[in-house]
Amino acid sequence: MDACYQIDDTSQIISPGMIIFKDLLEDNLRKMIELVGDPARLRPHCKTHKMREIIQLELSLGIVKHKAATFAEAEMLAEAGVKDICLAYNLVGPNIARAVEFRKRWPDVSLQVTADHPTPIEQLGEAMTAAGVEIEVLLDLNTGQNRTGLEPGPAAVELYQMIANTPGLIAAGLHVYDGQNHQVDFQERETAVLAVWNDVSQLRDQLITEGLKVPRIVAGATGSFPIFAKIDDPDIEVCPGTCVLHDVGYGELFPDLKFTPAALILTRVISRPGPDRITFDLGYKAIASDPAMENRCRFPDLPDAKAVLQNEEHLVVMSQRANEFQPGDELLAIPRHVCPTSALHKSVTVVSGGKVVDHWNVAARDRFISV
Amino acid sequence: MDACYQIDDTSQIISPGMIIFKDLLEDNLRKMIELVGDPARLRPHCKTHKMREIIQLELSLGIVKHKAATFAEAEMLAEAGVKDICLAYNLVGPNIARAVEFRKRWPDVSLQVTADHPTPIEQLGEAMTAAGVEIEVLLDLNTGQNRTGLEPGPAAVELYQMIANTPGLIAAGLHVYDGQNHQVDFQERETAVLAVWNDVSQLRDQLITEGLKVPRIVAGATGSFPIFAKIDDPDIEVCPGTCVLHDVGYGELFPDLKFTPAALILTRVISRPGPDRITFDLGYKAIASDPAMENRCRFPDLPDAKAVLQNEEHLVVMSQRANEFQPGDELLAIPRHVCPTSALHKSVTVVSGGKVVDHWNVAARDRFISV
Repeated sequence: MDACYQIDDTSQIISPGMIIFKDLLEDNLRKMIELVGDPARLRPHCKTHKMREIIQLELSLGIVKHKAATFAEAEMLAEAGVKDICLAYNLVGPNIARAVEFRKRWPDVSLQVTADHPTPIEQLGEAMTAAGVEIEVLLDLNTGQNRTGLEPGPAAVELYQMIANTPGLIAAGLHVYDGQNHQVDFQERETAVLAVWNDVSQLRDQLITEGLKVPRIVAGATGSFPIFAKIDDPDIEVCPGTCVLHDVGYGELFPDLKFTPAALILTRVISRPGPDRITFDLGYKAIASDPAMENRCRFPDLPDAKAVLQNEEHLVVMSQRANEFQPGDELLAIPRHVCPTSALHKSVTVVSGGKVVDHWNVAARDRFISV
Repeated sequence: MDACYQIDDTSQIISPGMIIFKDLLEDNLRKMIELVGDPARLRPHCKTHKMREIIQLELSLGIVKHKAATFAEAEMLAEAGVKDICLAYNLVGPNIARAVEFRKRWPDVSLQVTADHPTPIEQLGEAMTAAGVEIEVLLDLNTGQNRTGLEPGPAAVELYQMIANTPGLIAAGLHVYDGQNHQVDFQERETAVLAVWNDVSQLRDQLITEGLKVPRIVAGATGSFPIFAKIDDPDIEVCPGTCVLHDVGYGELFPDLKFTPAALILTRVISRPGPDRITFDLGYKAIASDPAMENRCRFPDLPDAKAVLQNEEHLVVMSQRANEFQPGDELLAIPRHVCPTSALHKSVTVVSGGKVVDHWNVAARDRFISV
């Protein structure tokens, strides 16, 4: 194993268990800041880790703006001391009342939410007005992923105008998530991101021409944030997520990003069912299963391992080196997709300089904390 | 929606949220008992739901033997009052000390664990002896899944003898999980299960001939338990799991099993990004992603929905009826695989007769409770 993944004593670590290598995590945070030049331009997404302690590390480095997808994540951010939170999720149903409650509970926190449709905008405005509070709303733009948002164009102008005219709401800018921009080739990705920016900046100019304020443009994801950051525009806030912990998936997708996986899963062999097979305690209740079965993790110390079966608590691999392993032997696995992996764990073991130095709760894996 | 899935008032239910329809759950438990004739023959697997309240329902129906895969699940069972627990998982690493702790904490609970290799058997025996306690060990058999266990044969006899001879351990029988027997055709499945039983019963006879005791054979899964239950052998304990809640996957795989999905996910539309697209708040942090993306759930009230994109908090479907939906509209989704789905939720909303009657914690989704 690479020396950066040394753990002096694993005997007390329950497996399967997530390990955060704190030195690597801090390196990733520093690289993230270097790529944008100024921590004030960053708005990292906490869904990747859902941990208060990582937020506090980020705050200590000057990263004061943060992004969330759920109210539990937003509450975790507020509890960790964040004063500027973008809940990049269109509110419907009980989430409208939760937004009111959040504004009342943390009146000194700037909370921006997103919207792309008149009905929730109307409901949100009515709820805020009834409660005597206000909330900032970003217009959610569809830049090509076709998941949420309006395409830049006349309907987007009209909806932004509606937000600005709705009592209880403050038109606070644009939300530009471009998850579709995951071209492996950096030049191709840059071209695609700049095309998105061209459309978005034209829309922004038009909104301003019509007398509207567009104070911020919350833009980009791990693959595109360095490109958005290079655009000379003080209103752009960039939103990396995965690279805080990094993983195999984004490592392969974005070879230009020099982050190091900082969250691995400690797993043990529990059976050797055949001469070429090893069974690990690494089921899909402990490591994310949105990638294909054969691609859910990589073992740096067993690169030829080929997953042939995974169940809830078991991962069976084939390897030419299977005979070197027996029950109880340990390996570290790098998840292909770390964000849904961390959400599977109640807490993580934190290692620095080879020593276990802490345990952190994955606080926001619960979808409801108190709001 | 089918009347059995009526919820009178959903306005306070946060989405995505798991709903347990208690009347259907109780029907499933009754059907499970009917299929085996006597609740004493059952040893259902709690990994499907991980909830104390379901265990207490089962206990009230006379189901006194239970099965678990993790120490958190076993602890939840013991806390719920279960006195006979099979932890069907081969112990390595810190789990050996956890077994000692468990035996000390609940000395009146019969705990059986599984083993398939000399090294952990030796370690477990030493740990138990040092602590002055004993533990029952089932020999884990490989009946064709090639995941864990030894094939019935001479090596299995030798290892069972080793268990019996190891101080601190009590040879307690055989563990026969046959997850490979998922033939859709019942006759084919029955033939395969009876072939497994033929090998296992021959092994059992041989062990007895050699003077060993084989007090129990813990056998089968949801697809095979009715077949094992029909075998006239008082030592067989059958282990359905999924059918307690049931899901789309086992509904299609086992058409002979007349259970009804009792755990659904309430989801809301958050966007309509295009004339034929609906985006639900149903990402793979709320519904299991081990099935293929297009197969992760079924909407009974939108049968033509075809999933085209799923991310952590979003499910985008195409439907010819998309124009009938707008943000805030609700649907219920039946998970394809309910077991890893319930593990994604901290708690569930319990509905009976259309009313919300309770909230249950998914207690054992945490991998560590106190042992």
